[in-house]
Amino acid sequence: MKTIILGGVAAGMSAASKIKRVDPRVDVVVYEKRGFLSYGACGLPYYVGGFNDDFRRMIARSEETFHSMGVETHLHTEALSVDFPRREVTLRGEKGEVFKDRYDKLLIATGAESVVPPFPGREKRGVHVLKSLEDGIFLREVAFDPSIRNVVIVGGGAIGLECADAFLNLQKDVTLIEAADRVLTPFDPEFSEEAAKEVTRHGVKLHLSEKVQQFTGGERVESVETDRGQYPADLVILSVGVRPSTGFLTDPRLKKAKNGAIIVDREMKSSITDVYAAGDCAATWHSLARQQTYLALGTVANKTGRIAGENLCGRHQRFLGVLGSAAIKVCDMEFGRTGLGEAEAGALREPVASVVVDAYDHPAYYPNPTPIKVKVIYEKRTKKLLGAQL
Amino acid sequence: MKTIILGGVAAGMSAASKIKRVDPRVDVVVYEKRGFLSYGACGLPYYVGGFNDDFRRMIARSEETFHSMGVETHLHTEALSVDFPRREVTLRGEKGEVFKDRYDKLLIATGAESVVPPFPGREKRGVHVLKSLEDGIFLREVAFDPSIRNVVIVGGGAIGLECADAFLNLQKDVTLIEAADRVLTPFDPEFSEEAAKEVTRHGVKLHLSEKVQQFTGGERVESVETDRGQYPADLVILSVGVRPSTGFLTDPRLKKAKNGAIIVDREMKSSITDVYAAGDCAATWHSLARQQTYLALGTVANKTGRIAGENLCGRHQRFLGVLGSAAIKVCDMEFGRTGLGEAEAGALREPVASVVVDAYDHPAYYPNPTPIKVKVIYEKRTKKLLGAQL
Repeated sequence: MKTIILGGVAAGMSAASKIKRVDPRVDVVVYEKRGFLSYGACGLPYYVGGFNDDFRRMIARSEETFHSMGVETHLHTEALSVDFPRREVTLRGEKGEVFKDRYDKLLIATGAESVVPPFPGREKRGVHVLKSLEDGIFLREVAFDPSIRNVVIVGGGAIGLECADAFLNLQKDVTLIEAADRVLTPFDPEFSEEAAKEVTRHGVKLHLSEKVQQFTGGERVESVETDRGQYPADLVILSVGVRPSTGFLTDPRLKKAKNGAIIVDREMKSSITDVYAAGDCAATWHSLARQQTYLALGTVANKTGRIAGENLCGRHQRFLGVLGSAAIKVCDMEFGRTGLGEAEAGALREPVASVVVDAYDHPAYYPNPTPIKVKVIYEKRTKKLLGAQL
Repeated sequence: MKTIILGGVAAGMSAASKIKRVDPRVDVVVYEKRGFLSYGACGLPYYVGGFNDDFRRMIARSEETFHSMGVETHLHTEALSVDFPRREVTLRGEKGEVFKDRYDKLLIATGAESVVPPFPGREKRGVHVLKSLEDGIFLREVAFDPSIRNVVIVGGGAIGLECADAFLNLQKDVTLIEAADRVLTPFDPEFSEEAAKEVTRHGVKLHLSEKVQQFTGGERVESVETDRGQYPADLVILSVGVRPSTGFLTDPRLKKAKNGAIIVDREMKSSITDVYAAGDCAATWHSLARQQTYLALGTVANKTGRIAGENLCGRHQRFLGVLGSAAIKVCDMEFGRTGLGEAEAGALREPVASVVVDAYDHPAYYPNPTPIKVKVIYEKRTKKLLGAQL
């Protein structure tokens, strides 16, 4: 029995490890497009910003560890297409050679890629995304260059805010431009406001409801033009979102969601027999919303990867689903959430209500109480708890 | 409708507030034996140790607040007996006067009292317990006296360990004597060992498996004698446990557990019609052990008090039960637990197993990871989680 895994970061390598624990006789072959396996991409902004000086700390298990488990791995090898009826993958190897490999079972774990909107000038030097470990290693080199003064970040989601923190730590002049009227949209507006205050307090020039028009300059980027202003830029970070890396899968029998995420059941099986998908390239069951959702998070990738791994060995584990739990640090402030936000909850259920409490993490009679804002979202009639944000 | 509440700290005042929120027409009369209402006794060691210089921070709601809610309160008024058939309480007031009061419904929320074993010399000056706010205010005065050098703590539970921390903070010479072979017995032995190391590292002289024989000295205590040694003592703190304050309730129709805790159902009703009990004077339903247990914790008291309050208004709220969640700080180390410990779980269910993981609170690629030891206890066959300790 041979299982091919496309993608070797979180979901793919969690699956590979699980398969080898459950049934060591299964041949597992991993093809990874880039040069690193099994790393925690969540650490990238901290590496770029100099909070951590060793990128190897982001690597959970080394290639040697996988080899010692009997997992075959191929780096710099990209899947170009899959012929599902023939169970055959076409790939391009490290030296550009194109070859085919056949599987009994396939796991697609190709993850996600940064969205790059078609802004004029996006091809200029100095315009970057931060997605892969290679991006991180390269960006850190750039970031540590003292001639890079003005950093413009486009997009105020988690990555954008963490990058703002990273570049503040390197004493850069940081401008953050967000097209929406608030940052940190996975959280409710109360928390967006706190995050905005926090980055502003630390010196970020925050521009909300402002749309990027183009990047200007010569070969290198020199400024960012929006519908409301122009900002000098030695470096631009594009962090406007991610999309599933599933463009190479063109067979219409493979069902995908609108954004390209592979639709899987709760055993991580796709619409094609013996083809599984897990991690950022797949849709995910939300156990509170009781519907498919898309949540590109490492925790979800590791969990769904392990479930896929077990089921690739013939088991029938069902994923319980996600609750939408996530956490982020923005400068000195920490944010956490679980369940449904107020708008999400309102869209899905009967009337909801919420309450916001400003409290402390422990009573004032203990030393050093820390202020904490808690929002709880609930069904109005039943008082059933639907979500909480802190 | 008149409800008498005996005891005005956590459970009693949570009930009083709840009653007034649910049905303001109910007459609520609270009799409290001591001089303070509605305080968080958990803060006492921190006040004694000078981490907090204002005991009012421990008071959740002032007497005036309760009066403005329409709650009648009487301090320094102790219940001497209850005649359940006549619905009549006999009390002794502030000036020693004995009087009676009648109720339609009664809530017993008299809490717990410190166990004082019959050690010879226990009546000497300088031998104290730390239970009430009065104890705390008095002990702080004593503790801040620079002539008090040697402090001996008898009992290494939560209060004993917190007192050790408190007296270390005041630069005292601290000896802790525990009769059992480990401290912090609400936790599993792995954590007892960590707590022992932590207090020892901070300078506490810890003596395990050592039994106190007597307190010697003149009018004042001068030393503590055990079966294995003698220790100089300017001050002795007795922290060997608590028992429900239910001795004044002698009617055998009121069902009590072996330790004196009032047996209640999940609506907090005792075995006598219209008599409820909540907080440290009552037994508690453990939702995992699925049996009555005794857990003298402020969180439980507040919850059961609120449930009692609702039901005293004619509702039928059922307490979901406790999971045994608790947390404590020992010097610089924090401990938390929930569910069943390994021994508890082993006594109640089919075969259990556990796993201990030494990890960090966040990945090493973020700044400042803190080491954390996690123990998880589970049913061996089903892998159902029964408890966790950190």
